[in-house]
Amino acid sequence: MPTISDVASLAGLSRATVSRVINNHPYVTKEKKELVMDAMKQLGYFPNTSAQNLRKQKTDTIAVLVPRLTNPFFTHLVESLEDRAAEYGLQILICNTKYDKKRELEFLYLLKTKQVDGIIMTSIENNWGQIEEITMNGPIVLCNEYITGANVSSVRLNQLEGGYIGTHHLIQKGHTKIGYCWGGVLSGLSYDRFEGYRKALAGQGLSINENWLFEGVFSIDDGRRVLNEISEMYDRPTALFTGSDEVAAGIISEAKKKGLHVPGDIAVIGFDDQPIAEVIEPALTTIRQPISEIGKKTMEVMIELLSKKNQSDEHQIYELPLQLIARESS
Amino acid sequence: MPTISDVASLAGLSRATVSRVINNHPYVTKEKKELVMDAMKQLGYFPNTSAQNLRKQKTDTIAVLVPRLTNPFFTHLVESLEDRAAEYGLQILICNTKYDKKRELEFLYLLKTKQVDGIIMTSIENNWGQIEEITMNGPIVLCNEYITGANVSSVRLNQLEGGYIGTHHLIQKGHTKIGYCWGGVLSGLSYDRFEGYRKALAGQGLSINENWLFEGVFSIDDGRRVLNEISEMYDRPTALFTGSDEVAAGIISEAKKKGLHVPGDIAVIGFDDQPIAEVIEPALTTIRQPISEIGKKTMEVMIELLSKKNQSDEHQIYELPLQLIARESS
Repeated sequence: MPTISDVASLAGLSRATVSRVINNHPYVTKEKKELVMDAMKQLGYFPNTSAQNLRKQKTDTIAVLVPRLTNPFFTHLVESLEDRAAEYGLQILICNTKYDKKRELEFLYLLKTKQVDGIIMTSIENNWGQIEEITMNGPIVLCNEYITGANVSSVRLNQLEGGYIGTHHLIQKGHTKIGYCWGGVLSGLSYDRFEGYRKALAGQGLSINENWLFEGVFSIDDGRRVLNEISEMYDRPTALFTGSDEVAAGIISEAKKKGLHVPGDIAVIGFDDQPIAEVIEPALTTIRQPISEIGKKTMEVMIELLSKKNQSDEHQIYELPLQLIARESS
Repeated sequence: MPTISDVASLAGLSRATVSRVINNHPYVTKEKKELVMDAMKQLGYFPNTSAQNLRKQKTDTIAVLVPRLTNPFFTHLVESLEDRAAEYGLQILICNTKYDKKRELEFLYLLKTKQVDGIIMTSIENNWGQIEEITMNGPIVLCNEYITGANVSSVRLNQLEGGYIGTHHLIQKGHTKIGYCWGGVLSGLSYDRFEGYRKALAGQGLSINENWLFEGVFSIDDGRRVLNEISEMYDRPTALFTGSDEVAAGIISEAKKKGLHVPGDIAVIGFDDQPIAEVIEPALTTIRQPISEIGKKTMEVMIELLSKKNQSDEHQIYELPLQLIARESS
């Protein structure tokens, strides 16, 4: 492996001059610069980025924490963040927390140990108290998920409205027995979405049946499980608000296997408007999340924060709207 | 921001002693170690990882290059690689090349600039000639994709067999007019898979109709486009080998929109056996890729390479089998 001394001796210059060229110092003549570049090329010498980062105290890298990379919502969100980051010459480090508190903290420490310049959290596993001290080391922006007491900027969707318009749509279709699927961890997002569901029911004088609240529901297979649980109930819901297109797809697929009609026997409403929503049959009624817009806005907030010398305590909340896409499953 | 000098002065020890504690040197008494740890905790001091990496010349991080993060095949593969890496205390850096030569080279330079210890490539955009020089800087392992002339270890699937068993299955179902969808970039993987298709056709005295070869086909929307192209043809294929469950799902969805029967009017075979294969109707006949196994094996090969002091020129090819899953779309 060639060293900086090898470059210096091949170029016939001092190590200090080579170092100045590598670090783009002013006051190096064009001729010397060319001699150094030629020598580096000939020797296949590349400056060590750990050393460079140490000098300039920045990495041009933003960590993006996602809870489940195999959920298409998050991969599309990451793509949108990446597109915007690339325009500013920033790299994205994608961190898959798997809904794990310990993994999340390990990734957050990337900011403490200066391996990234900032962190975007699309999910939150730990209490804010544990995360807060890390905000001293650089900017954290919340994207999608949010949490009470967080003193950082966030870009989010109007989840209360999402829960409301989905449930209200099912009520308008004549349903009074409406079940609800969710992850099971009480976050800002899940609290507000559930509040929208509750509010829509209450608006029609309907109350929540706790037997119809399904927890720990994330994937196609979880959706299959929910449908199986329902079919063993004596008093069944006639409609389901699922919070996820994948879960809804699993419910629909399993219902058809059992000879149930969707929406006749069970109506289903998804969340996201992923490509799968138009591929399954019946096509999925869902709540469209503006993934591209939320990613773009989040990265812009991050770039704004990185350009400020002193982080202020000021933080802003940006809330984007959701939209009901009515198809055939409801 | 506290510095190493602040830690030293609070602990009442020299900077050199603090440094020895941070770097886990032997010959530091337990008492001094505790004094330093307490001072670090009190001050909220965290060692700068760029500085640490510089000293130990390793990062415990492996970059994984994927061509399209929104393809579930790659997110499931990344999860499998991550699971195995975590067991060895290694981190994964997920790099989305978007099938772009320039982005791929930028990510490969992470190895040159010592920001990662090794690289796993699940796709290859540049010629091997351009990638080869980077193998001097650390281990590269190919996973899934492969390329002629690559002098590194690779873990791959038997793509020739995949192309063959899929096409042979369609022939057995009575089809003689079989179209073929693919990305359009001639790689080791795509060459072999196509060769399997060709071989199966030739075995029955059938030849390739170039009008039925569809290029640049990756997503659900691309599948819709292929079906629309076919429906405008005078002489149409009656079956399609798609190379992707998402493409197959798009073809099936669009066929049904047009009132075509699957498999009666057009038979379709996917590739991967992703969750979507069992959710669409008719359920998708597909080639199951052992994603979990290929990820596990690849990470084991990488860990083996990292444990060797001197990289040898020796490299190995591990080939895993594929399996036909016959359902209703064929």
